[in-house]
Amino acid sequence: MCCNAEILKVAVVGAGYWGPNLVRCFSGHEHTSCEYLCDLDLEAAARVARRFPGVRTTSDFDAVLNDPNVDAVAIATPVSTHFDLTSRALRAGKHTLVEKPLSLTGNEGERLVSLAAEQDLRLMCDHTFCYTAVVRRMQEIVSQGELGDILYFDSVRVNLGLFQSDINVLWDLCPHDLSIIDFVLPEDMKPVAVAAQGIDAANTGFESVAHLTLHFEKPMMAHIHANWLAPVKVRTMLLGGTRKMLVWDDTNPAERLKIYDKGINVSSEDREKLLVSYRHGEARIPVLDNSEALMNMVGEFASSISERRAPLTDGHAGLRVLRSLEAADKSLTQGGLQIKLPT
Amino acid sequence: MCCNAEILKVAVVGAGYWGPNLVRCFSGHEHTSCEYLCDLDLEAAARVARRFPGVRTTSDFDAVLNDPNVDAVAIATPVSTHFDLTSRALRAGKHTLVEKPLSLTGNEGERLVSLAAEQDLRLMCDHTFCYTAVVRRMQEIVSQGELGDILYFDSVRVNLGLFQSDINVLWDLCPHDLSIIDFVLPEDMKPVAVAAQGIDAANTGFESVAHLTLHFEKPMMAHIHANWLAPVKVRTMLLGGTRKMLVWDDTNPAERLKIYDKGINVSSEDREKLLVSYRHGEARIPVLDNSEALMNMVGEFASSISERRAPLTDGHAGLRVLRSLEAADKSLTQGGLQIKLPT
Amino acid sequence: MCCNAEILKVAVVGAGYWGPNLVRCFSGHEHTSCEYLCDLDLEAAARVARRFPGVRTTSDFDAVLNDPNVDAVAIATPVSTHFDLTSRALRAGKHTLVEKPLSLTGNEGERLVSLAAEQDLRLMCDHTFCYTAVVRRMQEIVSQGELGDILYFDSVRVNLGLFQSDINVLWDLCPHDLSIIDFVLPEDMKPVAVAAQGIDAANTGFESVAHLTLHFEKPMMAHIHANWLAPVKVRTMLLGGTRKMLVWDDTNPAERLKIYDKGINVSSEDREKLLVSYRHGEARIPVLDNSEALMNMVGEFASSISERRAPLTDGHAGLRVLRSLEAADKSLTQGGLQIKLPT
Amino acid sequence: MCCNAEILKVAVVGAGYWGPNLVRCFSGHEHTSCEYLCDLDLEAAARVARRFPGVRTTSDFDAVLNDPNVDAVAIATPVSTHFDLTSRALRAGKHTLVEKPLSLTGNEGERLVSLAAEQDLRLMCDHTFCYTAVVRRMQEIVSQGELGDILYFDSVRVNLGLFQSDINVLWDLCPHDLSIIDFVLPEDMKPVAVAAQGIDAANTGFESVAHLTLHFEKPMMAHIHANWLAPVKVRTMLLGGTRKMLVWDDTNPAERLKIYDKGINVSSEDREKLLVSYRHGEARIPVLDNSEALMNMVGEFASSISERRAPLTDGHAGLRVLRSLEAADKSLTQGGLQIKLPT
Repeated sequence: MCCNAEILKVAVVGAGYWGPNLVRCFSGHEHTSCEYLCDLDLEAAARVARRFPGVRTTSDFDAVLNDPNVDAVAIATPVSTHFDLTSRALRAGKHTLVEKPLSLTGNEGERLVSLAAEQDLRLMCDHTFCYTAVVRRMQEIVSQGELGDILYFDSVRVNLGLFQSDINVLWDLCPHDLSIIDFVLPEDMKPVAVAAQGIDAANTGFESVAHLTLHFEKPMMAHIHANWLAPVKVRTMLLGGTRKMLVWDDTNPAERLKIYDKGINVSSEDREKLLVSYRHGEARIPVLDNSEALMNMVGEFASSISERRAPLTDGHAGLRVLRSLEAADKSLTQGGLQIKLPT
Repeated sequence: MCCNAEILKVAVVGAGYWGPNLVRCFSGHEHTSCEYLCDLDLEAAARVARRFPGVRTTSDFDAVLNDPNVDAVAIATPVSTHFDLTSRALRAGKHTLVEKPLSLTGNEGERLVSLAAEQDLRLMCDHTFCYTAVVRRMQEIVSQGELGDILYFDSVRVNLGLFQSDINVLWDLCPHDLSIIDFVLPEDMKPVAVAAQGIDAANTGFESVAHLTLHFEKPMMAHIHANWLAPVKVRTMLLGGTRKMLVWDDTNPAERLKIYDKGINVSSEDREKLLVSYRHGEARIPVLDNSEALMNMVGEFASSISERRAPLTDGHAGLRVLRSLEAADKSLTQGGLQIKLPT
Repeated sequence: MCCNAEILKVAVVGAGYWGPNLVRCFSGHEHTSCEYLCDLDLEAAARVARRFPGVRTTSDFDAVLNDPNVDAVAIATPVSTHFDLTSRALRAGKHTLVEKPLSLTGNEGERLVSLAAEQDLRLMCDHTFCYTAVVRRMQEIVSQGELGDILYFDSVRVNLGLFQSDINVLWDLCPHDLSIIDFVLPEDMKPVAVAAQGIDAANTGFESVAHLTLHFEKPMMAHIHANWLAPVKVRTMLLGGTRKMLVWDDTNPAERLKIYDKGINVSSEDREKLLVSYRHGEARIPVLDNSEALMNMVGEFASSISERRAPLTDGHAGLRVLRSLEAADKSLTQGGLQIKLPT
Repeated sequence: MCCNAEILKVAVVGAGYWGPNLVRCFSGHEHTSCEYLCDLDLEAAARVARRFPGVRTTSDFDAVLNDPNVDAVAIATPVSTHFDLTSRALRAGKHTLVEKPLSLTGNEGERLVSLAAEQDLRLMCDHTFCYTAVVRRMQEIVSQGELGDILYFDSVRVNLGLFQSDINVLWDLCPHDLSIIDFVLPEDMKPVAVAAQGIDAANTGFESVAHLTLHFEKPMMAHIHANWLAPVKVRTMLLGGTRKMLVWDDTNPAERLKIYDKGINVSSEDREKLLVSYRHGEARIPVLDNSEALMNMVGEFASSISERRAPLTDGHAGLRVLRSLEAADKSLTQGGLQIKLPT
């Protein structure tokens, strides 16, 4: 993607669950290099860095920021630290990639977006799923109008575990769905309200089973079922349009995506005499490439910097996801009432 | 089920979509006979009755009610006529079976239940699914405590069509789910509030995609996804308990029901140091008999009458389903707010 | 299919497992009527005929043959009686439909085919599967060249039961596969040899697990796995061609047929430096109509008679199936050796 | 498995497709180390070794054999070199692990087995599948008698590609199935004859679609369908016994193994009056651990050496697989005739 011969020099912050994947991809991508792995736990950083010769370890974030050799910073630390670390990185003049969710509150997210704009730096949110072959294909199919107008978006993301100890199931799982919905739907189709229902089924202090609904200007609805307590793993999205519909079943690698030439035609002068006819056409299973999503994401980060343009999943996208989560939490405390999103 | 040698003599009202099935079962069951098929459209009735020698056709409902030979009436007419026809049947001293939903409003339903009690007659709602082998097994599993305490109930009932011209998708599809949930959950576990979200995706004047949530006293939630506009047929229920969980996939006849020895154990003195462990045990696929649900339902109607006891899915059950639907409609108009159910 | 307004008058012989289905279809089809149901067990015939007013019952086959009102006879009796009954029907000037297999031996089958030709009568074998939407579609796909040259045909037909007491599993199940293969493959592509392996796993005196292989002039092979002792029901056909491939999974009604744009390209000047490239294109799931196969078969029988042409699955087709079965039995006794088929 | 604290020092030979996996496992296992990676192509070896500090590269096999520090050799080179390299390794006093198949001919294989016995060294064949959780569980189930007497074994291993340029599809794919069958069946149940049918569908000089049948003393049959030209990947085994049956579907990770309480009971004094009843009981899906098969294999190699006992998949097992392949080739040239195996 990046056509600039220069190599983007990156420092990864956080040697926990996700950081090592970032180190691997920034080290392995032809347009990037990983200069530092920074973590307060130097031993943890060392364990990771051992497999990647050339990656220095440090626990001194300021030193990283002061190194003029570092072009960009990738933040993979706990969410509660995102705002502080990202602010400092941007102020130090570094392009910044942040894990999702962008921050803890919409206000914080907004300040990060503004700061990046002021500094004329790239702020990107790592919505990894948007860089999978299947989501990119869905985005193409929708943008080319193959589905017609979108009528609904339904996502099921359930499994047994992993319970988080500091956030509810919506904050844990829905950033995936929300970022995919944000990416796949047309530019001019953003949610206007959010409602959520959930229960703290395991008595852990946080909802472990929940349903989130996005509402839009037009009669269109997106729904996400998130559940840490399901006996089976389900990763399914249904996307219905006026012309066609599609199903993404991520647990069926051989037939991940199916596009159905199915739909209805409503013909009636008045609604009393409603005449609905059903269209049952052929389904097709497209071929999807096997490129690694995270590697594609890293490439997009580098390209957006070298091309001086917003990355596909920029700070605004991260902020929209964040605001939906924030509204969902509010709805949970108000009996499932729809909460309006800021426009 | 019925041990009385006497034959219950039944008049079926309505020769539309479902009536013929009732005629077939009341004719075929060893403890019942079908005396009449009554419909304003005598020709329609005649077309059906031709295949069932001994079934008389008539368009005169009063004549049916006045025939002392008729023990019971089965109402399979449009919902808007249920209240009138059922009231008249009960007043004429006939035991009455009504298709679901019981009536149009909770008030009407309540009056039917009271009337049946006053007349000391059986009032039954045809919740056919409760007489399938799979639902009866689920009810046994739950009542025997195999799942432990129930944590959530999740149902997906989506397909392409059939659009109804006078009711929304909740009234069309959810009577199935609501009656099953009512039947499977323990006696003392009835919903206290209902919330619903939906859209009129096809611009037909009624919601065609909707989500209904039932809330209970304890932190337990039931959710139903009903959709007339899905490209694939899904009929799945997930039922999670503190000890085990189950999945019912009605589109997979060879493995309709699976019981998973899966769950979590939460051990923590304080929530800050939450320790969740996951239990992954064996799953089993029980054998289910192939008896016809509708025939079982007919047998239960006959047995309840001969044994002078409430049928499994009596008027109260029908009324509970009806009130949930009514509350869901109210919630739809109030932005998804939870609506309390009468206790 | 039949454009002649005349009604074909048929006598069905045999009131056992399949006969009632023939009575139903000959009674129900617009171009045929069922005049008689003939069985030595008059009570059995009467039990069936009760549901079909207008069908006379008799145990006198000669009387049926002597009735000038009867145009055609449909034989659904045990295989051992096929030759005698079919010969007599043809000699009496009746068009004849016979259940599969056509008879017990190739010689008998040949004599029936000759007799029909001499009498200028239609002899048809009830290869019901050839009248399903999926097999007709497969035949079209192959004949239109969409798959290219056929490379192999693989069929799995396994299940628990039903054990037959007088024939082995090949004679029980493979007439389906053999008739489908005969129907789907091009006219000029008939097997030249048959091999079979099998075991009498349940010690019943007949093979209950067996594999049958058909060989052709060109390097093409068809294989059938037939098994009465499998814990799961499998009904799958794989059909590979030089251009595309297809899979028919009859236990998956929503996706019964899939056509894969997959294959290989072999490019090499000499075989030492073999260069094989793989083509992975889109798959498609065509829409199939829901017409009943047996009703279509009855229609084809009537049409072939009114149009004075051979039916799609005529006596020759029945004879080819029979000869393959006969050769398979011979191969079973000779350690799986390939047995040549008569040309 | 290995209780000896000593570390087994291994040299891996062959840096092609499989060798790097062996290097990874011998490097990673707590009871082994990888001293050398030996390949004629030193650059290829270096590319692999880069990721494993401490592994020396060489193209000098003799130097490896002369290094007294090396306890064992693992051969992952083309089959045609197995005999030579393994002989030399054994003569040099090294325990030897060989990739499957053991060698090109039964005679060669026999000589390797004898040589290992003479030298009192461990000779092991890398039948990796025998170290998966699912195959070990199948072996336990069979050996504990849960299935009763084994009636048949049916394996389907089909996919698109990868075509081999020097061997047919049986030699490429069936070592998996043959080694599994050899491992799972009881000790006293070894095949006595082999038959095979196949075609060179792609005109590459080797069979690309083939069927292999193993016959046993008793009426029991194993069948393998191997196909490089299938549009879908199928990895299924059916195993039928007199008491229970099982299905292994390797493409369904969540339900890889199912055990069915299904079967038949044959009760008849004489075969004329065969009475077969069918038993349809519950199925169960056991939990399988996620340990890596190759790592388990490496552990067994080390344990067998430290415990001075034959490894689970020793040279004899490798030889039995080899002889079945050899007989299959012979059968292919003789029209599918059963070829007796040496006893």
